[in-house]
Amino acid sequence: MSDKKRIRDLMTIPGNFLPGIHNSITDVPGVTASHVTIIDESKEVRTGITLISPCKGDVFVNPLPAAAVAGNGYGKMTGMAQIEEMGTLESLVGLTNTMSVAAVLQGLAEYHMPLLPSEYKSINIVVGETNDSNINDIHGFHVWPSHVGEAIAALSKNVEEGAVGAGAGTVCFGFKGGIGTSSRVVPGEKSGEERDYTVGVLVQSNYGGNLSLYGKPVPKPSNNMDDEIKPENGSCMIIVMTDAPLSSRQLKRLAKRALIGMTNTGSYMGNGSGDFCLAASNHEKNRRIRERKGQECYYLQDSQLNPFFEACADATQEALYNSMTMSETVVRGDRIYPGLRVADANN
Amino acid sequence: MSDKKRIRDLMTIPGNFLPGIHNSITDVPGVTASHVTIIDESKEVRTGITLISPCKGDVFVNPLPAAAVAGNGYGKMTGMAQIEEMGTLESLVGLTNTMSVAAVLQGLAEYHMPLLPSEYKSINIVVGETNDSNINDIHGFHVWPSHVGEAIAALSKNVEEGAVGAGAGTVCFGFKGGIGTSSRVVPGEKSGEERDYTVGVLVQSNYGGNLSLYGKPVPKPSNNMDDEIKPENGSCMIIVMTDAPLSSRQLKRLAKRALIGMTNTGSYMGNGSGDFCLAASNHEKNRRIRERKGQECYYLQDSQLNPFFEACADATQEALYNSMTMSETVVRGDRIYPGLRVADANN
Amino acid sequence: MSDKKRIRDLMTIPGNFLPGIHNSITDVPGVTASHVTIIDESKEVRTGITLISPCKGDVFVNPLPAAAVAGNGYGKMTGMAQIEEMGTLESLVGLTNTMSVAAVLQGLAEYHMPLLPSEYKSINIVVGETNDSNINDIHGFHVWPSHVGEAIAALSKNVEEGAVGAGAGTVCFGFKGGIGTSSRVVPGEKSGEERDYTVGVLVQSNYGGNLSLYGKPVPKPSNNMDDEIKPENGSCMIIVMTDAPLSSRQLKRLAKRALIGMTNTGSYMGNGSGDFCLAASNHEKNRRIRERKGQECYYLQDSQLNPFFEACADATQEALYNSMTMSETVVRGDRIYPGLRVADANN
Amino acid sequence: MSDKKRIRDLMTIPGNFLPGIHNSITDVPGVTASHVTIIDESKEVRTGITLISPCKGDVFVNPLPAAAVAGNGYGKMTGMAQIEEMGTLESLVGLTNTMSVAAVLQGLAEYHMPLLPSEYKSINIVVGETNDSNINDIHGFHVWPSHVGEAIAALSKNVEEGAVGAGAGTVCFGFKGGIGTSSRVVPGEKSGEERDYTVGVLVQSNYGGNLSLYGKPVPKPSNNMDDEIKPENGSCMIIVMTDAPLSSRQLKRLAKRALIGMTNTGSYMGNGSGDFCLAASNHEKNRRIRERKGQECYYLQDSQLNPFFEACADATQEALYNSMTMSETVVRGDRIYPGLRVADANN
Repeated sequence: MSDKKRIRDLMTIPGNFLPGIHNSITDVPGVTASHVTIIDESKEVRTGITLISPCKGDVFVNPLPAAAVAGNGYGKMTGMAQIEEMGTLESLVGLTNTMSVAAVLQGLAEYHMPLLPSEYKSINIVVGETNDSNINDIHGFHVWPSHVGEAIAALSKNVEEGAVGAGAGTVCFGFKGGIGTSSRVVPGEKSGEERDYTVGVLVQSNYGGNLSLYGKPVPKPSNNMDDEIKPENGSCMIIVMTDAPLSSRQLKRLAKRALIGMTNTGSYMGNGSGDFCLAASNHEKNRRIRERKGQECYYLQDSQLNPFFEACADATQEALYNSMTMSETVVRGDRIYPGLRVADANN
Repeated sequence: MSDKKRIRDLMTIPGNFLPGIHNSITDVPGVTASHVTIIDESKEVRTGITLISPCKGDVFVNPLPAAAVAGNGYGKMTGMAQIEEMGTLESLVGLTNTMSVAAVLQGLAEYHMPLLPSEYKSINIVVGETNDSNINDIHGFHVWPSHVGEAIAALSKNVEEGAVGAGAGTVCFGFKGGIGTSSRVVPGEKSGEERDYTVGVLVQSNYGGNLSLYGKPVPKPSNNMDDEIKPENGSCMIIVMTDAPLSSRQLKRLAKRALIGMTNTGSYMGNGSGDFCLAASNHEKNRRIRERKGQECYYLQDSQLNPFFEACADATQEALYNSMTMSETVVRGDRIYPGLRVADANN
Repeated sequence: MSDKKRIRDLMTIPGNFLPGIHNSITDVPGVTASHVTIIDESKEVRTGITLISPCKGDVFVNPLPAAAVAGNGYGKMTGMAQIEEMGTLESLVGLTNTMSVAAVLQGLAEYHMPLLPSEYKSINIVVGETNDSNINDIHGFHVWPSHVGEAIAALSKNVEEGAVGAGAGTVCFGFKGGIGTSSRVVPGEKSGEERDYTVGVLVQSNYGGNLSLYGKPVPKPSNNMDDEIKPENGSCMIIVMTDAPLSSRQLKRLAKRALIGMTNTGSYMGNGSGDFCLAASNHEKNRRIRERKGQECYYLQDSQLNPFFEACADATQEALYNSMTMSETVVRGDRIYPGLRVADANN
Repeated sequence: MSDKKRIRDLMTIPGNFLPGIHNSITDVPGVTASHVTIIDESKEVRTGITLISPCKGDVFVNPLPAAAVAGNGYGKMTGMAQIEEMGTLESLVGLTNTMSVAAVLQGLAEYHMPLLPSEYKSINIVVGETNDSNINDIHGFHVWPSHVGEAIAALSKNVEEGAVGAGAGTVCFGFKGGIGTSSRVVPGEKSGEERDYTVGVLVQSNYGGNLSLYGKPVPKPSNNMDDEIKPENGSCMIIVMTDAPLSSRQLKRLAKRALIGMTNTGSYMGNGSGDFCLAASNHEKNRRIRERKGQECYYLQDSQLNPFFEACADATQEALYNSMTMSETVVRGDRIYPGLRVADANN
């Protein structure tokens, strides 16, 4: 019987906001996600793809206001320059290992291209990555473009966590990292709006530092790792989705708070860490149109954003803990990467 | 009789867009400007203040979407960090000499503070500068906070050009630089909108390079200047105003095109040049409100922006030429800084 | 008898690095600091200036590699654009209240200008600010340029903390904030260098959030403040100095870690907070020269930076706690801003 | 007999600096380049790869100081975030069409990975692109990873220009664009150094605007194109190499001047253009080492940079003209994309 539990089932989670129904990025209306997990223990293959579909309808035809930031840029998230320039997300979002970015980019291109309106000949695709070479044979290029099709077919509201998809082979604070998700609802009375809005976060955790569990230090597991994080390892990818009516500028502000949620777990954003956050809003009034005419929009004031900032940081922190508590232990040679169990915090 | 003329009265101006009625930043509805010129030849004082009021009504109570960019950041424009974060302009805009930024900042603070709604205790004020020490006793701090009050009293739709205000002591390509202005109207049929919109530009020119007049090289005047621009000299401030409904992200894109208009005059943006552009939109639907509630807005699509980009670059280029052709010759010791006359291009 | 103590005298400070001798920014060789505190209780004046002199010798003649970043840019630090472009700090660094930036800028200009080599006519001056209007009559402009001269005369290795200088009137998490300082020594064996290097931090704390003391939540004091931080209030200025041989690019990375130290105290970087960090290195081999010739330098590899990142975040966090534990209680009308006492964490 | 000529063989080129021996990016010592051109007229395939090898020895083992900037970010250059963070280029540089970025990224990964020192498991690879769908069947994914191997085998000092490699299918101002190259030598007496240094530029031209030839307007060819540039088309990739000892911060400044060279040809950086520049220095003293110890370096002062700025802008402008004058005419259906002939400027 699995001893994997979400952190919220293990302890009281501090914070001023409650999660959505599934405590998942998919609590945001229109958002789905999926994984393709690729494991062949005989060849030390343990990697995969995680996919996020950010909205109902075609994301290219009606792009979403979006922003992406690098907390520490030792890594890559394709498409960032165009997101910065145009303020929009126009593709599905893929996560994978560092050396499989090309495969996922190609797979997403093959998916999107036939769907483009005929006058469009290119698309800006977002693929993020972390380096899972501690556990995975990253040189073997075991992710193929065709795996993307599998991931698309699997998109759903149910998001598995832990050592799955793009998190199959990642390591976090010496524990087995992976995929985690969480969400927060910002009630209208807190934001000054008539509606509640949801902020959902999905993470791929693969970084280090001095882990603490809501302020309580967690000793490192004795997994025979070198003390020094290798210079090219590490990284954390954070995808934030919301239905709140935020502009690309405001989403950049939100994305920076996701990074606070990450550092709150005990990271100093190490030199070799690629810590990125993409944030997008699928609010129905603000999706762009592909016509050359002005558009009525609806945006919050910045003075309404504080609850969203706090919600985003808190959901990110919880998602990161989930990525470790929902992972099982993985052994690679003489190194053991245990899933985080709350007893670890009491050692 | 003055031989000063605007460049448009001297030659055919290329380009796909026509200027507004006054060919001035004040062609944008709600925009006014003024100068205080401070000259005391006996003390080698030749400097001043130029002020731009960006809209009708109180700019603090209803801030404007805005953006500011540095082409080459060897200089300063106060308030840029907050403009980047909040995407808004909430003050009048001052220009002066490098060492008088504090005086103008103080003067604008003294103007704005009593007008703030009572719950607000601070304001983000924009003051730009160039270094007029070639002609002006910049060490003497001859601009005082009280001069700002004079400038505010003088705000009007009529913008004097040349060696006035913040341009009294500036030098451009070895010629006498100063203040210039120009505008372009983007017809609705070009932008896809039902309305025409105006882009207006005001510049403070104080930079160098290889001057050309719409492609025709202009020899440097023999003004006994050293060939080398001194490392701390130079700079160009560009203020762009429009009534087009552009977001702060789109205004940042527009501001970058103003810098193209500047380099089109023959600048490579020298090492010691502080080349900044502030762009703001006073479109009536997009001025922010100081309440904690969401706001209906109206923004153009980015696919509508090309005519605005071209209009902005062209107006900036023309404004820069105007700053030189509308300046009279100034002599300082054995150095002569002539106003640019079109005959100069035919030498 | 004062019950003010530094946090290190009150509890065990976690972390992997030890402070320098004075646990102060002045542990960095060549760095001095001072305050001018301006209090007139009868007029509700409670503000001031804090000054940091970053090196031996003239900082303008031999500027320091430097970088400045905004965590949340609702505020101002003058001179940032030129620091970004040139990668250098060339002035003393002043801190004050939001509406006194002009006064301190003017005072520093009056100090520096007569000292410039004769061919230089301008200087890029750094002044940061936070809004102390909760306690101080900020509209009264009680800081004058002449106060800067007093501050310069008072520069020393001894840095008073708490409700002094630019921190006289600031508020942090509902407690009395102010000035704090701390340092960390990075031993050569940790960085791979033959020498130890010091990272020193000085902060002006004036922000909010959910205060925790190294992970332990601290209840808000009952000081009759509104729950909502006013939109224009807040902010935190962080000055980081080091003698480690870091380039401006590396110092930008370091500055971002200071912001992690800030968020580790419980801040989400609220909407109205101006959270800035300036970082500079006064390593003797890397100070720039004012001649037009290349320069031998000595820089660390980025793979050596992790201990500096951690040291910088930790020193910032400790400096922020010091700013509150070293403040006495200040009363303004019916509002009480108590100094933080560690008993507060045990309530 | 071909009527293709380089622009310098057709007219007098203005400017203050002379080209290197080959007037090519390969005038920079250690730099080589190559093309793989992929044409199948029966299937409307006309695309390819251009590769630049930036230095002698292994670029990963001893990375180069580097910077990358987006003039207008509607496009992509992989690896930019890590270049910004670390200030280094550690891979060969590939150019291709927009939808073949994944293929070239994969091909370069397959090349580099086996060469990495064993403790390194990932590499940051730079691939730029423009959209050649006016002429090329971009949806067909006709560039494969294996083509990268061909390009690597072909690396040489001789750089073919025009409709080759990544420029086989590009269009510029309605003319046939493609690959162009140029260089400038900055003599020691201009920079204040004892040595001469070279700035070399290679471009992939695929953008529009109002073409002028050193100030002389060139009418658009009558090629039956729509007046409106399609929203997703356009772009210009610029690769700048130098042996001058410039830091990553200084290279960012240099890269911005390459964009001035581009706008000097008549571009306003249209909305849908992805205009990027990568600049790197292979100066022998400043290549990074992969050890954890400090490094002696040698960098120019910023006050020495003006000649490099001018050289870089001028070489870029000339390279762009070369990309058009060295292209033959290409016909696609009823649209004709003529190579630029100088007679065009005299129409």
